[in-house]
Amino acid sequence: MDVMSAIKKRKSVRSYLAKDVEEEKLKLILEAARLAPSASNRQEWRFVVVRDKKTRSLLMKAAKNQSFVAEAPVVIACCAKTDNHMMSCAQLCYPIDVAIAIDHMTLLAVELGLGTCWVGAFYEQEVKKILGIPKEIRVVELLTLGYSKDESILEKDRKPFEEIVMSEIWGRH
Amino acid sequence: MDVMSAIKKRKSVRSYLAKDVEEEKLKLILEAARLAPSASNRQEWRFVVVRDKKTRSLLMKAAKNQSFVAEAPVVIACCAKTDNHMMSCAQLCYPIDVAIAIDHMTLLAVELGLGTCWVGAFYEQEVKKILGIPKEIRVVELLTLGYSKDESILEKDRKPFEEIVMSEIWGRH
Repeated sequence: MDVMSAIKKRKSVRSYLAKDVEEEKLKLILEAARLAPSASNRQEWRFVVVRDKKTRSLLMKAAKNQSFVAEAPVVIACCAKTDNHMMSCAQLCYPIDVAIAIDHMTLLAVELGLGTCWVGAFYEQEVKKILGIPKEIRVVELLTLGYSKDESILEKDRKPFEEIVMSEIWGRH
Repeated sequence: MDVMSAIKKRKSVRSYLAKDVEEEKLKLILEAARLAPSASNRQEWRFVVVRDKKTRSLLMKAAKNQSFVAEAPVVIACCAKTDNHMMSCAQLCYPIDVAIAIDHMTLLAVELGLGTCWVGAFYEQEVKKILGIPKEIRVVELLTLGYSKDESILEKDRKPFEEIVMSEIWGRH
């Protein structure tokens, strides 16, 4: 599948088939994350792959009872082992770099016929407790992964091009 | 080009041909950003597309004199119009969401035969002054875009799979 098709087809999947994710597909998806770029090649990302049903249920509770977090056969806790280094532009490296790795995973998942959902609505301390994650590690996102119940391609509800793109200087279209 | 090939082929391009970027390719790349997902579909990203040679020279100076910032025929200032909203996981939405949009652009650029480089080493206030960006807007990254002088595919220097992926619980491999 070409990149633009994957971008267009990707959607937030919140309803999953009971079908498990093949180990080799999961490995490819994590490999896509591993190959992501990061600021000064810091690679602060760390991934805890959860398949255990009971653990997924606990994660669901920590994620404000979003039922698809337990329903998805795989939940990946996307973490950062970070020293909170900032770039000169005054942005922390780790949220951006973990996001790049996750985006790679979401697009490759589409290519492999799988669905994902970025989950930012969770209580970090609860997730850390469930997964035994040390104090100094940040949990940036949970990513659910599995086969979608609904294969349809959604029209994306997005701001028009003109509202987000400017030319040469702020405010000029 | 399939997604995994684009992920493998993407590299930080810091040397560009004088060849300009076709308007239609640029539009597709910005469309890839526009279609990105964001927390609660907030779409805080805003992009200032700079082609003007003099402006690119000024941006280069704001980016610690990294010469490829002036050399690239296009520089996209990737901004956020944000209220600094945080997800429940205690991460700001905007750095993650702008990063997703940029990652979409970098992968589509590969598909279109173009190269990019994420630039986080710049002084935000200087960039804002050059581009007339209002006080309340954040500049998250600069993205250079153009035809690479060097088409070779690099072996990526990355941590081994085992160091970044854990199973079921932190620290278990």
